[in-house]
Amino acid sequence: MSGQLSGRVTEDPSALVRELVLDPQFRYETRTLLPSYVAIEKAIVAEYLRMGLIDAEQARTLGGLLDDVTPERIEDARQQNLSDIALALERTVTEGLAAPVPVWHVDRSRNDLQACAQVMYAKQRLRETAGQLHALADAARRLAERSVDVLMPGYTHFQSAQVISAGFYFAALDERLLRRSRRLLFTYDAIDACPLGAGALSGQELAWDRERIARLLGFERPEPLALTAVASREWALEATAELGLLGATLSRFCTDLLMWAGSEHGFLDLPDALSGISASMPQKKNYPLLERIRGKTAHLAAFHVDALLGQRNTPYTNLVEVSKEAGAHVAQAFDTGRDVLRLFTAVLEGLRLREDRLLAACEKEFFGGFTLANQLTLRHDIPWRTAQVIAGGYVLAAVRAGHTPEEHAPDVLREIAAGHGHTVDAVDAEALLQDAFDVRRALRRMSSAGSAHPDRVGEVLAAQQQDAKVLADAWAVRADAVRTARATTDRALGLVTDTE
Amino acid sequence: MSGQLSGRVTEDPSALVRELVLDPQFRYETRTLLPSYVAIEKAIVAEYLRMGLIDAEQARTLGGLLDDVTPERIEDARQQNLSDIALALERTVTEGLAAPVPVWHVDRSRNDLQACAQVMYAKQRLRETAGQLHALADAARRLAERSVDVLMPGYTHFQSAQVISAGFYFAALDERLLRRSRRLLFTYDAIDACPLGAGALSGQELAWDRERIARLLGFERPEPLALTAVASREWALEATAELGLLGATLSRFCTDLLMWAGSEHGFLDLPDALSGISASMPQKKNYPLLERIRGKTAHLAAFHVDALLGQRNTPYTNLVEVSKEAGAHVAQAFDTGRDVLRLFTAVLEGLRLREDRLLAACEKEFFGGFTLANQLTLRHDIPWRTAQVIAGGYVLAAVRAGHTPEEHAPDVLREIAAGHGHTVDAVDAEALLQDAFDVRRALRRMSSAGSAHPDRVGEVLAAQQQDAKVLADAWAVRADAVRTARATTDRALGLVTDTE
Amino acid sequence: MSGQLSGRVTEDPSALVRELVLDPQFRYETRTLLPSYVAIEKAIVAEYLRMGLIDAEQARTLGGLLDDVTPERIEDARQQNLSDIALALERTVTEGLAAPVPVWHVDRSRNDLQACAQVMYAKQRLRETAGQLHALADAARRLAERSVDVLMPGYTHFQSAQVISAGFYFAALDERLLRRSRRLLFTYDAIDACPLGAGALSGQELAWDRERIARLLGFERPEPLALTAVASREWALEATAELGLLGATLSRFCTDLLMWAGSEHGFLDLPDALSGISASMPQKKNYPLLERIRGKTAHLAAFHVDALLGQRNTPYTNLVEVSKEAGAHVAQAFDTGRDVLRLFTAVLEGLRLREDRLLAACEKEFFGGFTLANQLTLRHDIPWRTAQVIAGGYVLAAVRAGHTPEEHAPDVLREIAAGHGHTVDAVDAEALLQDAFDVRRALRRMSSAGSAHPDRVGEVLAAQQQDAKVLADAWAVRADAVRTARATTDRALGLVTDTE
Amino acid sequence: MSGQLSGRVTEDPSALVRELVLDPQFRYETRTLLPSYVAIEKAIVAEYLRMGLIDAEQARTLGGLLDDVTPERIEDARQQNLSDIALALERTVTEGLAAPVPVWHVDRSRNDLQACAQVMYAKQRLRETAGQLHALADAARRLAERSVDVLMPGYTHFQSAQVISAGFYFAALDERLLRRSRRLLFTYDAIDACPLGAGALSGQELAWDRERIARLLGFERPEPLALTAVASREWALEATAELGLLGATLSRFCTDLLMWAGSEHGFLDLPDALSGISASMPQKKNYPLLERIRGKTAHLAAFHVDALLGQRNTPYTNLVEVSKEAGAHVAQAFDTGRDVLRLFTAVLEGLRLREDRLLAACEKEFFGGFTLANQLTLRHDIPWRTAQVIAGGYVLAAVRAGHTPEEHAPDVLREIAAGHGHTVDAVDAEALLQDAFDVRRALRRMSSAGSAHPDRVGEVLAAQQQDAKVLADAWAVRADAVRTARATTDRALGLVTDTE
Repeated sequence: MSGQLSGRVTEDPSALVRELVLDPQFRYETRTLLPSYVAIEKAIVAEYLRMGLIDAEQARTLGGLLDDVTPERIEDARQQNLSDIALALERTVTEGLAAPVPVWHVDRSRNDLQACAQVMYAKQRLRETAGQLHALADAARRLAERSVDVLMPGYTHFQSAQVISAGFYFAALDERLLRRSRRLLFTYDAIDACPLGAGALSGQELAWDRERIARLLGFERPEPLALTAVASREWALEATAELGLLGATLSRFCTDLLMWAGSEHGFLDLPDALSGISASMPQKKNYPLLERIRGKTAHLAAFHVDALLGQRNTPYTNLVEVSKEAGAHVAQAFDTGRDVLRLFTAVLEGLRLREDRLLAACEKEFFGGFTLANQLTLRHDIPWRTAQVIAGGYVLAAVRAGHTPEEHAPDVLREIAAGHGHTVDAVDAEALLQDAFDVRRALRRMSSAGSAHPDRVGEVLAAQQQDAKVLADAWAVRADAVRTARATTDRALGLVTDTE
Repeated sequence: MSGQLSGRVTEDPSALVRELVLDPQFRYETRTLLPSYVAIEKAIVAEYLRMGLIDAEQARTLGGLLDDVTPERIEDARQQNLSDIALALERTVTEGLAAPVPVWHVDRSRNDLQACAQVMYAKQRLRETAGQLHALADAARRLAERSVDVLMPGYTHFQSAQVISAGFYFAALDERLLRRSRRLLFTYDAIDACPLGAGALSGQELAWDRERIARLLGFERPEPLALTAVASREWALEATAELGLLGATLSRFCTDLLMWAGSEHGFLDLPDALSGISASMPQKKNYPLLERIRGKTAHLAAFHVDALLGQRNTPYTNLVEVSKEAGAHVAQAFDTGRDVLRLFTAVLEGLRLREDRLLAACEKEFFGGFTLANQLTLRHDIPWRTAQVIAGGYVLAAVRAGHTPEEHAPDVLREIAAGHGHTVDAVDAEALLQDAFDVRRALRRMSSAGSAHPDRVGEVLAAQQQDAKVLADAWAVRADAVRTARATTDRALGLVTDTE
Repeated sequence: MSGQLSGRVTEDPSALVRELVLDPQFRYETRTLLPSYVAIEKAIVAEYLRMGLIDAEQARTLGGLLDDVTPERIEDARQQNLSDIALALERTVTEGLAAPVPVWHVDRSRNDLQACAQVMYAKQRLRETAGQLHALADAARRLAERSVDVLMPGYTHFQSAQVISAGFYFAALDERLLRRSRRLLFTYDAIDACPLGAGALSGQELAWDRERIARLLGFERPEPLALTAVASREWALEATAELGLLGATLSRFCTDLLMWAGSEHGFLDLPDALSGISASMPQKKNYPLLERIRGKTAHLAAFHVDALLGQRNTPYTNLVEVSKEAGAHVAQAFDTGRDVLRLFTAVLEGLRLREDRLLAACEKEFFGGFTLANQLTLRHDIPWRTAQVIAGGYVLAAVRAGHTPEEHAPDVLREIAAGHGHTVDAVDAEALLQDAFDVRRALRRMSSAGSAHPDRVGEVLAAQQQDAKVLADAWAVRADAVRTARATTDRALGLVTDTE
Repeated sequence: MSGQLSGRVTEDPSALVRELVLDPQFRYETRTLLPSYVAIEKAIVAEYLRMGLIDAEQARTLGGLLDDVTPERIEDARQQNLSDIALALERTVTEGLAAPVPVWHVDRSRNDLQACAQVMYAKQRLRETAGQLHALADAARRLAERSVDVLMPGYTHFQSAQVISAGFYFAALDERLLRRSRRLLFTYDAIDACPLGAGALSGQELAWDRERIARLLGFERPEPLALTAVASREWALEATAELGLLGATLSRFCTDLLMWAGSEHGFLDLPDALSGISASMPQKKNYPLLERIRGKTAHLAAFHVDALLGQRNTPYTNLVEVSKEAGAHVAQAFDTGRDVLRLFTAVLEGLRLREDRLLAACEKEFFGGFTLANQLTLRHDIPWRTAQVIAGGYVLAAVRAGHTPEEHAPDVLREIAAGHGHTVDAVDAEALLQDAFDVRRALRRMSSAGSAHPDRVGEVLAAQQQDAKVLADAWAVRADAVRTARATTDRALGLVTDTE
């Protein structure tokens, strides 16, 4: 959108375009992409050097000037009416050159430059997101570990249905977060391909070594085809899709916490630093932070929709519409993801379970009906559907009689069984009821892998710990690759010597 | 989330909550809601005065101090760790009072205060949006008026199908924009109800006059029920829905402009100030601005989805999640709408039709087949489906023979007709072809109301002009109501005298 | 996509296209649009008659044959490989004609035909939706009317905050539903413009009377411009937007009902016919129906997004993409809206409030703090912020001492007030506490319009009743217009005589 | 929602619930899940056998009866008022038993049963989608292979910018489709975990071998935690996310095809079987199929949004809202994906490139400016920005003089260069222009990997071929695992003998 340098457009872009489009874009890129632009320019210099188009001295000089570029100097250039960060960077470096380097930027395009800088930015944000995700997963796991024996009602359909433990519940959160990390890692690897060298659209005329460029920029490989390299912004769709999925899952866990922290459940408490009060209801703690977290998860899905809408029905080529406008909120999407993860981590670290209220909520319910039916079948050969009807009948009779689960009525059970043609003797009936309706034995009655039995939960948590380590290591390897690449480039430009 | 003033929470909100939640919210509200907060506080003072709880002097003092509140002073208060703009405003005024006014803020809540300030902000943005919308509609109408005789191909299914005029096309844009203004006005009126006086949730204990409060704040009426007043943020859904609809429609017109400005069509040109060039293809003008506009329309729908997601499955009551977080991008949505409208207006004002290329594109096509079939039926009693087949057969024969539409072959027509059992004499055949395939007569052959006939388009444009005026007047009435209300409040507080 | 009748395409559409595209579309249109197609064809015949192109006998014959068209006959035509309902209808009628009517379908296009049939369908569905909406609003109002004195906790931020009544709550639902009806009516009126007479794109060559056509088809007016008439499907966006808004609002009320019906709240009950049980937990009632309703509201927003995505970035003209594919789920959207409304109505009609539990939930809370602070200010001149601190201090002291709200400790209040430098005598203190903490007086303490005071709620409900009537009448007027139009057309075709 | 068998609910579900909720769900599950339900029941029988709770004869009997279950018999059961496919299946089998098997279904839940059947269905649809995706990728690759030498303009910003080949373009489509297959495979592997054995929520009481169950059902592993097994439907989000991404990408390629098939470009043609004509414009071919495909891609994203909205803010547990309602359109999403892929494949198989028009579009453009600038720098040491200005100046001069790209004006070039202080001799100038502006040499001038050079495109296509094979093999391995599992189960139940 600039015409200062050559060609047909002779007027300046109007103030309107500058105000509403160019300047915001310029600032956005300075904030998000500048370090990547510098790194790319350095890799380009390294290639000119390799191709013998510049000499070592020129390479070192250009490299040094690139290292000196700061946001402030770029901003100065912008105020001289440059429309674009790439041109500003070129001007900044050029002004620092004692002697011109004629060949500099020959056979170059801004299309693959911008595509490359954006992917580098996306990679960085994905790595950061993974770090925040693991911090939350760790917090969930620690909370789970210390609460595998804290009984609580497990709900289905908003009704308490079975006894579980808080540890069992938070292990589920950890599980899903590790799943998200695994997908994020896959997403990262899928975009870890370097667009540079694609030129404007159709490739480049000089013999650029795209494998080497990819290596110098910390990519796993070059993007195979020039067209996809400049036309695609699938990474923006894929990254925001992952954030949207994360948001959907977290919104569900957050819904439980909000309800459980509410006045009728009263299962949870947060420290004062994470709570709020209304001036007019001073006896109450509110948890606006939980509302904020849940509310923010909505944005994550919306930003994905934004990216989808923005790319929809556009030609498959390099377009401002796709490369800039459709990705306008990607940074905001990552920021929101970061905030959600950090705030949720603070919540889990501060969360206090009100164990007395959790236990009381368990003890008031007749949870043992299913167990009773199981035992009627297994010990007394009563067909299972009939056993269910008998167990159900017993529970309903107890409820109607105003009994608590612990007040057993073996005669009632026997009578109902008899009504279905089955005999249960008095001792057995008492034993069955004792076994089935003791809340404190509920967890240990479970036996299957992955069940709420504290030992099973412990096994799952141990496996998660191991998984988390494997994943975190994989992320670390990728971060190292980027760091190493930077050093390699600096050596190639003669900016550092090997002895350093 | 604040506990400075009373009650159970004894620690300060943590730095994290402040950084990620409280401070951004505070700044957002200072930027968007402060004038409304001040206006509301003045209306509240007017009510205390009416109820005899404060005297005229106190009212004038409070009113004056409220008028002195600036964003900077509010920001100072924030830095003293106040979490909330309402508290900051209270503190700022309180510090200015020579003598305390004990009753000030009795029976008040921040819930209806915030709900009210937000609706006032939404109303303001809707009025501004309407103004921008009308500017675009006016530009579309002016462009249409000067191009009712500029022939161009009308496309269906990406194929040129009939001759239309550019004026006919841009009249359609005007039509849809006026429709949007009409819905926006309805949306405005639907939200023009004052939440103040709803208290925290269930109403207020003092005898507040909610009709008067609504009037003092420029609302058409009070919101009838306290619960809806504080719980609903439907305005955010409704306003963003309208922006989303606007975006969807504009994206379609923008798609045409993008394609028509492309190298194969070459129908349009924009002035240099609105164009771009690629340094490496200096002979080309690009129109990134059109891409930007179209790309920005995507955000409008996305922000609506954001609001929908944010409110979804929340309790129907006052919630931070709904009142703040779900509306976090509403200002951005309005900003985006404004940018789209302003940029699109600049485009239409600068747009140049390349009439030669438009005409050439018309002349190469055989548009007259439909007319020919009509006339074969009407003048020669050939059943219409047969007439279509004959006309189609003629066109195909002409295309195969390599004729242009103006090269008539009456004998071919007669032969094909004969093949279907119909006789057309030579003079008639020539006349039929002459009439049907003369591109320059195509528009004037149309006769129905709303057709592309220049006179019909002129009638539509005149009606649109009238509609636009009625709508603009209606918007002006609403802007006046708000201005008048402000003056009335100032008089009630004794800040201005009637002679002013 | 058909080439049987004329022109260049000589092969049959492949089986694939038929299976995946043409046949589903044909069946969809037969199901949804056939009656409108017939009505439109009759209006067209009436116009041929008016223009003198056919005679009265031909008109009556065509009209009679059109009345005889059935879905089955259309389906027969489809199986003869016709790709399109309009062609099938033409063939069906043609086969019934004893003598051909050559002029029939001269100057006609399928573009405006389909556009018109779709709008007629949309209008019908909107009217039906309004009826279902009013049924729900009536159910909400009846429920509200019988529960204005049923106390319940009002929540903010998931914490009980004030006493409200169930009637107050359900009046809010009624309020929002009437708002939705009002917007739906506006939406209806905005689309009540007849596309017929727009031809393929640019209008028609004969002197069709578009005002009369509109009238014969029950439209309020013709669509002004031919291009918008065939290019726009904004009605699909607007109608689904309204459904999406309805869904968002209902999802919130449904969230409350789900939580309140849950085991920890236990505020609500549904009859067995609307409840579910788990075989293994027979003592429990589940309310899967509430989950279904809430879940279905999600689809409403999604179908709007679908329409937005489908129209996005398409040329502004007649397109299969927009006219058919983008609207592919509109009928499903209306169906889902209908199901949500009918099921929600059944829920409200069957819902039983568990008044004992609601009252108990109120009585355990210290709701009076805000009132106490108000009175300390109003009666004792204690500045309001200090009064809040004193009231808050009293409540916290009472909670810590293990008191219930009804166990007053006037000395504690006096002591705290004294600590802030204010004297409250013993009699006053007792009176203040008695007044503030009596849950049963809470509602009647409210006085502002729209508050939870039973009388205020009654006034709101009476106004709603009136509103509902005005709206329902407006909908009835529109339904009448369509019915009348049908009769007028039949008279014009001589199908009925005036004496009938 | 059923109460026939036991417990408190005594009335039948109302007709409304049956009509709007239960019956549609029942039919949906019969259509989509029945084979999985049968397979799961067989695995359960195998486990009862392993645990010694039933004998081999009972196992074989149950297995045989399960194999005999048909949709028709399930439908009969539904009409006897069973609300649920699981109960219908149980009843159908029970009625076939000569002697009861009391233990059958002891310790079982419908929660993990349904979760498991749904994942099995999702896996099947993902495998099918992969097959359709690879068919499209193959078609794209074949088309690319035969058109690596077909020149066409490459566009950026809707302006032709460089010469590319059709093969280069379609290689990009292949590339992106393989990327989608890779992500789909990862998505598949992520959900390839068996929920069975999770019970209602908290696990099971008997010693079920979850590893073995997973194996018998063709899963790679069991889902680790009981809670996630029944609460999560992340697979629905993940699968629809992938479909949405596919839709976004395909919409872009489809946009190109639509534009290129339009009358002003005229680059493409489809066979008649895939084309349409308008009766009134018989000389035209329309491509409604392309519009359909593009339109359908919109639904893919919308169905993802539907799933996101449906799960949002629900408790993390087993819920009808999530398990059924939120996934209500998943099958439709897969169907739409299938239709898009099949139709797009038909398009690519039938697509004919109009090479003459493609070449003509190339030849009219001055594509060589960039090359010219490069060579001015490389051969003449002109600094690159200046070289660009000179090249741009030359092109503009040629355009203004009305030259075609092939009409060289070396003197003009020399003059402009001189104006910038650089000397180019006449021979060089001619050579430079000859080289730069020869369209037919454009592709072979490219040299970088992934460029449009036919050899480079060939290399990319060969690599894609290899990738496609690796991916297809991976999908085949997964399909085999499911087949093998089925046979293993049948052997375990004694339904087949090892000699078979």
